[in-house]
Amino acid sequence: MTAWEENVRKVTPYTPGEQPNGAGVIKLNTNENPYPPAPAVLRALQEVGADSLRKYPDPSASPLVEALAGYYGLPKDQVFVGVGSDDVLAMSFLTFFNGGKPILFPDITYSFYDVWAGLYRIPYECQPLDEDFNIRTADYCRDCGGIVIPNPNAPTGVEKPLAELEEIIQANPGVIVIIDEAYIDFGGESARSLLPKYDNLLVVQTFSKSRSLAGIRIGYAFGNKRLIRYLNDVKYSFNSYTMSAAALAVGTAAIKEDGYYKETLHKVVRTRERVKKELSKLGFLFRDSQSNFIFAAHPKCPAKELFEALKKENIYVRYFSKARIDNYLRISIGTDQEMDVLIRFLEGYLGKRD
Amino acid sequence: MTAWEENVRKVTPYTPGEQPNGAGVIKLNTNENPYPPAPAVLRALQEVGADSLRKYPDPSASPLVEALAGYYGLPKDQVFVGVGSDDVLAMSFLTFFNGGKPILFPDITYSFYDVWAGLYRIPYECQPLDEDFNIRTADYCRDCGGIVIPNPNAPTGVEKPLAELEEIIQANPGVIVIIDEAYIDFGGESARSLLPKYDNLLVVQTFSKSRSLAGIRIGYAFGNKRLIRYLNDVKYSFNSYTMSAAALAVGTAAIKEDGYYKETLHKVVRTRERVKKELSKLGFLFRDSQSNFIFAAHPKCPAKELFEALKKENIYVRYFSKARIDNYLRISIGTDQEMDVLIRFLEGYLGKRD
Repeated sequence: MTAWEENVRKVTPYTPGEQPNGAGVIKLNTNENPYPPAPAVLRALQEVGADSLRKYPDPSASPLVEALAGYYGLPKDQVFVGVGSDDVLAMSFLTFFNGGKPILFPDITYSFYDVWAGLYRIPYECQPLDEDFNIRTADYCRDCGGIVIPNPNAPTGVEKPLAELEEIIQANPGVIVIIDEAYIDFGGESARSLLPKYDNLLVVQTFSKSRSLAGIRIGYAFGNKRLIRYLNDVKYSFNSYTMSAAALAVGTAAIKEDGYYKETLHKVVRTRERVKKELSKLGFLFRDSQSNFIFAAHPKCPAKELFEALKKENIYVRYFSKARIDNYLRISIGTDQEMDVLIRFLEGYLGKRD
Repeated sequence: MTAWEENVRKVTPYTPGEQPNGAGVIKLNTNENPYPPAPAVLRALQEVGADSLRKYPDPSASPLVEALAGYYGLPKDQVFVGVGSDDVLAMSFLTFFNGGKPILFPDITYSFYDVWAGLYRIPYECQPLDEDFNIRTADYCRDCGGIVIPNPNAPTGVEKPLAELEEIIQANPGVIVIIDEAYIDFGGESARSLLPKYDNLLVVQTFSKSRSLAGIRIGYAFGNKRLIRYLNDVKYSFNSYTMSAAALAVGTAAIKEDGYYKETLHKVVRTRERVKKELSKLGFLFRDSQSNFIFAAHPKCPAKELFEALKKENIYVRYFSKARIDNYLRISIGTDQEMDVLIRFLEGYLGKRD
């Protein structure tokens, strides 16, 4: 080790899902939306002019903040935007979790939470899900430095009823409770409605899943205005201009295309419900999912074996080699055609194996 | 103060220059390039398809990393990219400055350095420029936790000879020396050539100035591969996908348009040299600038007065209300026409005042 390496922050980074290219790949591994963004969104990108590229973008991202505020019926000083919800969450960890007490989040959850805690040297304690993958309210009603709960949880897809989340938020007035709602639009009930009652609540959402815009990198958060101001202070201490001219144009256009957005949302949900039935018929076990993926295990065939067999067929799903969930596959909801290919393959594979 | 506020990271954020809109504004306040990016760059943005928006971008940003590596003749594991050089620098501070000793940078320099140090609680000591705004080599040849030197320096525009920078890099093998080359393309000599000799050197550059792309947010860094790996580990612990599909397409196309890029660069430099003469004729004093701005004082008229008079005419320049430089204006180099309007106004204003 050379001398300068002693001062380096050593971390264990997050590993994102594979991004395979090439024709014929069925990509059900990173919870992307199978449908394109609205045509008007694409046009908005095409209309970004030379002058917008040449100049710095609006550092306050105001067109996008205003569009979100208008759509969700909140004042704009209650809205924060970032480079995907990962950026919003990273900034939130850095801003709000500076006490000495450990923050709490589930043991089986989005695997970036412990990475951010590691990066910023935030002490944390994972709270085990119960045997049915439920987040137990009592685990989060205790002295701590902050709380992060994804709802619905990933990769399990299980939704926690809003009344139970409210119990947790209410029991923790002295710390910030982050509800990570990356998948909320696919059927869950948002904690946004609790904002007027609790000043310690931050609700984080994203354009990457329900709005078909993972490629442009937009996430956002809602909270009381003091909380959003603190978050913006940290953002302005990190990078004045996080949102590009392209992201501002695309995000603002996407909010306007509400009809299209709801139509694709409806299609994903309809496919998910059908796939649930098909997977059940094939013997898969899973909790009811309110997200755009299903987290399923088969009692007769190890998940790892299925994962590899699917990959050979150019069908990518996500497998986590981690205690308690290493016999599950996380399967994103694709188009009907894509899901049919998946189901037919599983049918054949499991049939031959019997 | 509510209880949760005790755990909040309190910071004093950076204040970016104004981004005034509207026709008739002459914007010489944020060192943007007055010329648009190449037509092919705009076309590349327009060709970003629905599928690229829908899916997550390549987390390793490989098309852009490869384009930069190819252009600058370095292996790609020596190249890091981020959301503007602010993102690259913020990540670098977080990655490399974790010792207990103070890091060193000039007292008059890019005003984000002390903001990042504040954000990450990094101790720092500012080293005063000499009376002619030179960075003194001896100040940086001492025990410290790291070094950041902008070359040319901003807002002074003064370049430090490469041999003197090498002395500093060589004197500090135990810490990382960051050379921030945001303005290097306008005439300075890059420290990139020193990379084979020093494993403690990080050279940071940006697409925002010389490549006319402040709006799309791309910065990059060169260093030895171990250093770049550490930087990427921190990046992957912060946000897997920092570079959008739009940024990847635009950045890659910009690197290919080398002829156009050199032509606009030449135009900016030619205008700068002419403006130097004009400002001298009007009695302004300034150090010779190798950047795309001139940092000038007038012995007979306070900078603040000029700043406000110019603003009334819709001509925006940058004024810093800070000790030692509060009688200077930082004037970005615009088009010839824009600079003519500026010069004519100054001529008239100073003439009337005599």
